[in-house]
Order: sequence, then structure tokens, then C-alpha cells
Amino acid sequence: MSKKKLTMKEIAAAVDVSVMTVSNVINGRDHLVGEETKRRVKAAIDELGYRPSATARALRSSRMFSIGFIVLYDERKFLGDPFIAALADGLCAQLAEQGYSLTIQGVFTDELSEAKAFRRMETDGLCLLLSGSQPTKYNLRELLKSLRQPIVLFQEGVQRAEPDICSIRQDDRGGGRLLAEHVVSRGARSVLVVVPQVEWPAISERVGGVREALHARPGVEMRVLVSESEKDADVQAALTNYLDQGGKPDAILAANDQMAIAAHTVLEQRGLTLPDQIMLTGFNRFNFWRYFSPKVTTVISPAEQLGRTAATALTRRIDDGEFEDRDIVLPVELVQGQTT
Amino acid sequence: MSKKKLTMKEIAAAVDVSVMTVSNVINGRDHLVGEETKRRVKAAIDELGYRPSATARALRSSRMFSIGFIVLYDERKFLGDPFIAALADGLCAQLAEQGYSLTIQGVFTDELSEAKAFRRMETDGLCLLLSGSQPTKYNLRELLKSLRQPIVLFQEGVQRAEPDICSIRQDDRGGGRLLAEHVVSRGARSVLVVVPQVEWPAISERVGGVREALHARPGVEMRVLVSESEKDADVQAALTNYLDQGGKPDAILAANDQMAIAAHTVLEQRGLTLPDQIMLTGFNRFNFWRYFSPKVTTVISPAEQLGRTAATALTRRIDDGEFEDRDIVLPVELVQGQTT
Repeated sequence: MSKKKLTMKEIAAAVDVSVMTVSNVINGRDHLVGEETKRRVKAAIDELGYRPSATARALRSSRMFSIGFIVLYDERKFLGDPFIAALADGLCAQLAEQGYSLTIQGVFTDELSEAKAFRRMETDGLCLLLSGSQPTKYNLRELLKSLRQPIVLFQEGVQRAEPDICSIRQDDRGGGRLLAEHVVSRGARSVLVVVPQVEWPAISERVGGVREALHARPGVEMRVLVSESEKDADVQAALTNYLDQGGKPDAILAANDQMAIAAHTVLEQRGLTLPDQIMLTGFNRFNFWRYFSPKVTTVISPAEQLGRTAATALTRRIDDGEFEDRDIVLPVELVQGQTT
Repeated sequence: MSKKKLTMKEIAAAVDVSVMTVSNVINGRDHLVGEETKRRVKAAIDELGYRPSATARALRSSRMFSIGFIVLYDERKFLGDPFIAALADGLCAQLAEQGYSLTIQGVFTDELSEAKAFRRMETDGLCLLLSGSQPTKYNLRELLKSLRQPIVLFQEGVQRAEPDICSIRQDDRGGGRLLAEHVVSRGARSVLVVVPQVEWPAISERVGGVREALHARPGVEMRVLVSESEKDADVQAALTNYLDQGGKPDAILAANDQMAIAAHTVLEQRGLTLPDQIMLTGFNRFNFWRYFSPKVTTVISPAEQLGRTAATALTRRIDDGEFEDRDIVLPVELVQGQTT
């Protein structure tokens, strides 16, 4: 057996421990491993002759054991948002298992060009959830690339020219398809999709999925209603106006659960019974969903799992020198409530 | 005027900027300040002769510009918990304004004695939300004190012997008093307080506040019902058992909103009308509260403000060498819903 080709897997098999345990010992996270196991792994490494690559060793020499999470501030709160809280929760839990901490840096959108704070962050890799206008997002992305750390980008597509960026997102397109097929199978012939004005790639994907599914159903009409924001009052004003002008959709597919619940108030006020006279769906099923009655048909977001996957992808990238996979899409699942 | 006594306030007045701006320039956070303002503040400092204390300067020389937030993991998710998410949200927002980042480190309770991960955290101060059993909490507190960083402890009392620990909490006792006085003023003569088995100082304070208020009302009976956990099923089982054995309280004061909402299901199943036949209250009014109908009478938690206050207290402590105030209690407010 060539010494150069010996893998962690082979060491793990020789000592009868997991590959993760071997990786922890090799990559300096040996405080996560019991003394006796550590001794056996090290003995096996000495005996079998494993040597990490020079690049990997160089990368490790200045290891900070911390991953950064950069969050742009605008009017929307950040950890108050259930999606961002779930991402951070999964990230932090998985990072803790691998001996890393999570450093969160808030950046104000209007100070972006001046933002030097995150240049001081002592991290081995970065996670990023972009928001705001396209130029803001572009600028931040360029600024972060200049830090020369591997980056996980949540809920955005990856570009071919960026080898050290890994995109991790939920299958929003698939979720849109599932919801559209579901309401059509229950008799909907006209579908109204309600979205906020600000462009979120995830929401564009959901709408794309609905369009795709309905394209295969020539008899079904699809319209898109744009609400000024995700706020209840804006959603309700837009829907009220739409219905006042004679719109009568068989199903309303809201961009997320908050917007679906806001829309429900309008339908209730008009005495429309669900699901007989009109159907309604949301998206994400975060914790607050279960407190609302009736239960809104929705799609389950794997947000916490996105965070855990990001932690694993980044720490592996730090150990190995490159991302194993640069475009990771996690599946979603439809859950039928009382509104369809 | 003695040069030694010149304060930031005087410099601020001389340049006509805020004390925060002067503090940012003096304490090396000058990336937060515009070039022209920075120049003027520096000129005023040179002219007027301000000198920070030697201790403060020594402390600043190794400044990391990061605050740590240590969270113990047990079965309860951490950033998935709305209280912890709100704390972290406020912390991170205020720290960002002062040029700091937030480093979050999850620690598993069963690995506490081995937990070396947070010893590696490069931070200037620590925030801590303790959970779990008393010995676990005591051990973590001692371990963290050994790191010799200033500590903010959320939702716990401060001990006299610990000068570099600052306690920041909401007025849970006052909240308990408000709720008890409210239901009594609306006719309650018997009150059932529902709490989880695990001891949280905040919840003990709430119960203490109820007891205090009722002590002044000799005719009113108070009982405490202990639920195995905060989970819906446990709360419902405990309450069902209590009512089956003939308990008939005029008002149920649940330890938090989640438990109140779980209790509501039992009351509804028994056909008890609220507030006529029985009253119900919760605590905290986090985001999910508004999705539930009927609106539960509750107390508003200033959780985000606790986080912001911690950020300000810690960064001032880092600048000045000691905490200005070591026991900070933020007020709460009663909000009447449809259940009292």
C-alpha cells in the first residue's frame, strides 16, 4: 500500500472508529475525542503512515476554529426572523460538534462600503445570507470574496466562476411545484400567487416552480399579485384591492406562511369558506405556524438542516482545501393542513 | 481645568458630536466615524488633553472586538427558542453599532468538564444564559470565571463576591405581581400557577411575584401545579389530572405563553368559556403569540432590549475597566388579551 494513498477511512477501519473521529484527531480537534481513542488513532497513523497534504497542513496552521455568519441589517430583524434563527441554530449546533464556534457580524446596508468590522473577524470560513437590492448584494459578495475565505451562500445560486463559494438552499422550486400540483389536483382552475415586491431568489424559485407545474396543465390560469412588502397590512391591502376588482381565484398560493396567514384574515372577513370556496397555501412551516388556526397547507423548510449542512461543508472544505460539492439543494415536503 | 479630569462628555460638547462618537474614536472603533468628524474629535483631544487611564489603555491593546455568547445545549433548542433568539438579536444589533461581532459557542452539558472549545474563543467579554441542573450551572459559571473575562449573566441574580459579573434580567417578579393583581381585580378568588419541573430562576421570580401580590389579598387561594416539562403534552396531562380531581381555579397563570396556549386546549375541550368561567394568562409575548386565537393576556418581555443592554454594559466595561451597574432589571408591561 502506498503511504501517500492511505485515507482516513482506512485508518478508521483499522482502529474501528468513525471517519469523523479520525478527522478530529488529524485536524487538531482532538479535544472532542477520548484519551484512549486518541492514543489508538495516533498509533495507527504512526504505524500506517498517513500524511495530510502540504496544502491542508498549511491551511491548518493558522486555524481559528470559528466560522463567521455575516448578516445584512435592514428593516427586517435578523435573528428575530425564524428562517435566520433556524439557520444559525443548525450552524451553531453542528459547529459545536466539530469543535468550532460561530461568529455573527451584523452589517448595516447603508454602511457597507465602510464596513471594516468583518475584516477583523478571525474566522476560517464565512456563511452569508444576502438581502436587499441587487447592487447591495453584489457589493457585499465582492467585498467578502476579497477576504479569501471559503464562503457558503444560503438560498442563492452559485456561479461557475467562483470555485470557493458553495451554495446551499432548499428546493424552493420543487416546493412551488408540489403546492401547485396539490391545489390543481383538488380542483383549482385559477391560481393567484402572492409575493412581496423585494426580490428574493428563494421566492422567485417558488413562483418558477408553480409556473412549471401549471405549464403542464393548459386549462389552469395563473396570476401573480405583488404586495408592497411581506407585512400583514400590505398583503391585506393588495389582496383586498384584487378581490374588489373582481378577482376570484380558486387558490391563493402565498410566498410564505406569514403572508398566507395575513391573507386568511381578508378571506374570513369576506365570509369565504376554506377550502370549499377558496384554497390557501403558505411556505416554510416555522414554529409559529402551529399556533394559527386553521392549519395552513404548506411546505416544510429544512432551514436547521441547511445550517448543519453548511457547517459540515465548510469544516470539510477547511480540512481538504476545496468544497466537495458547490451546489447543494435540500428537499422539501408538502404538509396538508385545513385550507386545501 | 485639570487635564486628568477632562471627560468624553466635555470633548463631545466641544466638537458638538455625541459622547458615543467620542468614545468610538478614543476606543479604536473609529471605522464607525466619518473622516471629518474623526479629525475634529482628534484635534479636540489633542487641544484639550484627554488621556484614557493606563488600565483602560492596557486592556485595549489586545482588544478582539468580539463578545462571546455561551449557550448550554440540552434537549431544548437554543436559537430556536424565541427568548434566546431575541437576546442574540439585540446583542448582535447593538454590538454591530459599536464595531463588535458576536461569537456564539454551543457547549454540550454532558461534555462540560471536557469543554475546551470556548477557551479558544478570542473574545473581550462573555454573555451567558445558564440552563440545566444547579451543579451543571455552578460548574459552567466557575469554568467561565477562570477565563478572566467580564461576564454578563442573563436572567440570574448576581452574587456580591463576583465583581466582574453583571446580571441583566427582566422584572419577572413584577410581571408575576401585575398578572396576579389583574386577575384578582377581575374577580378571581382562586389562582392556579402552572410551572415546569426544571428550576428556572426567572420562573421562580414570576411565582414569587404572584405570591407577593396575593399575600396582600387574604381571601384569595393560590396553588402551584408542576408540569413534568414545558411541552404541550405534559402541561395538558398535568392540568387534565388537576381538573379531574375536582380542582376549579378561577384563573390559571401559566409560566409562559407556550404553556398557556397548551392549557387553553384542555379548557376548550371541557367547554369552559374564557374569561367568564375561567381566566388564563401567559408570559413573554414573543412573535408566535399573535398567531394564536384567542389572544392570551400576558406580560411583554423586553428580551431584545436585554441583549442590547448587555452589549452596552460589556463594551463600556471593556472601555472603563469595571461595570457601572452590576444588577440591571428591565421593566415589563401587562397586555390584556381576550382571556381575562
